[in-house]
Amino acid sequence: MSAPRVLIVGAGGFVGPYLAREFIAAGYRVDGADLHPSPALPEGVAFHALDLLDATSVRELLAACEPDIVVNLAGFSSVGLSWREPRTAFAVNVDGALDLLEAVRLCDKQPRLLLVGSSEEYAAADHALSEEDPLDAQSPYGLSKLTQERLAGMWRDHYGVQAVCVRAFNHTGPGQTDRFVLPSFARQAARIALGLDEPVIRVGNIGVRRDFSHVEDVVRAYRLIAERGDCSKIYNVGSGRADPLAAHLQTLIGMTGKDVRVEVDPARVRKEDNPLILCDNSRLRGELGWEPRKSVDDALRELYEGFLRTGEASR
Amino acid sequence: MSAPRVLIVGAGGFVGPYLAREFIAAGYRVDGADLHPSPALPEGVAFHALDLLDATSVRELLAACEPDIVVNLAGFSSVGLSWREPRTAFAVNVDGALDLLEAVRLCDKQPRLLLVGSSEEYAAADHALSEEDPLDAQSPYGLSKLTQERLAGMWRDHYGVQAVCVRAFNHTGPGQTDRFVLPSFARQAARIALGLDEPVIRVGNIGVRRDFSHVEDVVRAYRLIAERGDCSKIYNVGSGRADPLAAHLQTLIGMTGKDVRVEVDPARVRKEDNPLILCDNSRLRGELGWEPRKSVDDALRELYEGFLRTGEASR
Repeated sequence: MSAPRVLIVGAGGFVGPYLAREFIAAGYRVDGADLHPSPALPEGVAFHALDLLDATSVRELLAACEPDIVVNLAGFSSVGLSWREPRTAFAVNVDGALDLLEAVRLCDKQPRLLLVGSSEEYAAADHALSEEDPLDAQSPYGLSKLTQERLAGMWRDHYGVQAVCVRAFNHTGPGQTDRFVLPSFARQAARIALGLDEPVIRVGNIGVRRDFSHVEDVVRAYRLIAERGDCSKIYNVGSGRADPLAAHLQTLIGMTGKDVRVEVDPARVRKEDNPLILCDNSRLRGELGWEPRKSVDDALRELYEGFLRTGEASR
Repeated sequence: MSAPRVLIVGAGGFVGPYLAREFIAAGYRVDGADLHPSPALPEGVAFHALDLLDATSVRELLAACEPDIVVNLAGFSSVGLSWREPRTAFAVNVDGALDLLEAVRLCDKQPRLLLVGSSEEYAAADHALSEEDPLDAQSPYGLSKLTQERLAGMWRDHYGVQAVCVRAFNHTGPGQTDRFVLPSFARQAARIALGLDEPVIRVGNIGVRRDFSHVEDVVRAYRLIAERGDCSKIYNVGSGRADPLAAHLQTLIGMTGKDVRVEVDPARVRKEDNPLILCDNSRLRGELGWEPRKSVDDALRELYEGFLRTGEASR
């Protein structure tokens, strides 16, 4: 029997190389598509240049690859930027999803399709969010992900497309850009440790509590859900624990061994910012046997050491 | 004091000329924008060629017109077609709304903005739908309108944009294309009365009950809501009465004075079709003093006589 095939769309981003390694380790033949090749993609991934907004190319790629599973990682991922470029957020997250739903529908042998949504789809709440909690996106980003999820439901109900959706909570690890908060903290800490900067870290609202996973745990969840998740359900992907950003900052400051001052930079404080975003991952644990193998502290250490080692800190 | 100004975007469609006449009668100076000029636009409307998806042009037009009110009628309006061209539905209904929200936000003197949503945003229900009833669009069209409405709420909450949203129920009147059900019935009836066709009318599911208004009542509601509606609320626009399509068909058959056979055409039967879509218009009546002045029978007679008179029936 030949190996199962997975096509990862948006393979060149932060998560793509991790997901490719996850599927390779599970015995898959992996195709990866993105606008441009990424040096981070592991050996053995067949790369395909693809503009997800070119619907014809998307259909042709699926016909050529004949995947058993398609995962869409090609997302517009910044809440803040979605206020400044809302049309781009909707183009990537909604039109892109539509291209994939249509391409899957038109396949002779329809693959399963995993679409990645976000905890930003939920209404604000003071408790761990389960998949049944009310949805009410607070940003164009969150709304674009909610719209993607609703479209997946329509294509499933109307056409029988096997699309399964996740709502991913925060995740991080080496390779994530320092436009995101923990890599930003880790890079600042590494530069201080290396003596490149004064011992001052600039932060936004570090009182908020977020549910951070290590990206390796997240991609394992994605594989399990893509393989065996129930398409009529949504799956939260998160650790089930939410600490204040301040705690992660203190962990990183501890790694520097220096006396570091923390300064609030008004430009980094979001206008709207939920005090708590926490994942109830009972479904993922219960149905698919997933549990986290790494902690956010592991991710922080890897990020910090990566910035120390690779020279990223001095770029 | 100079006359108030309204800019109608999508002025060249079915509803635009009616809305233009409504505002002219109320003393407004009317600017109308669309891709192409429409011969149906009344005298006195200043026409502007505009591609709503060209954000820069939208901003420039608003800066040039300095309207007090902007109404967006440029919508992708077909539920059925939205399954075949979902990306186009989202481009027109979501990207177009974003262009207007952004253009309004950037105006020196911000106009009020009326965005037209749809009864298709509601979840199926066996009762008259009030604005508080659950939303759950069943088609890409309905979802695109729901997304537009949520974006309007965000731009209001985040930027203070004065955007007010309506959910319009079915409406008809002379000028509506016979891709819609009542003009289709009326045109077929007129052709039979003129002896151009055999006395057979082909229909879809005529058991469903829909809330039809005369378009003249709808545009009066739009003007009142644009002028005085509370931006923090949604306004249903509908007659409050839902008859089976079969009743309207019988009315039209009665006008022909002939013995007409009704045949079900499977191609016209929608896969999903709510048995009832009925409007609770209490808010519109109570807050703005609106009530319908015409009946759906008036609209049917005007449609039928129009098809008889203008030669449309024989095109």
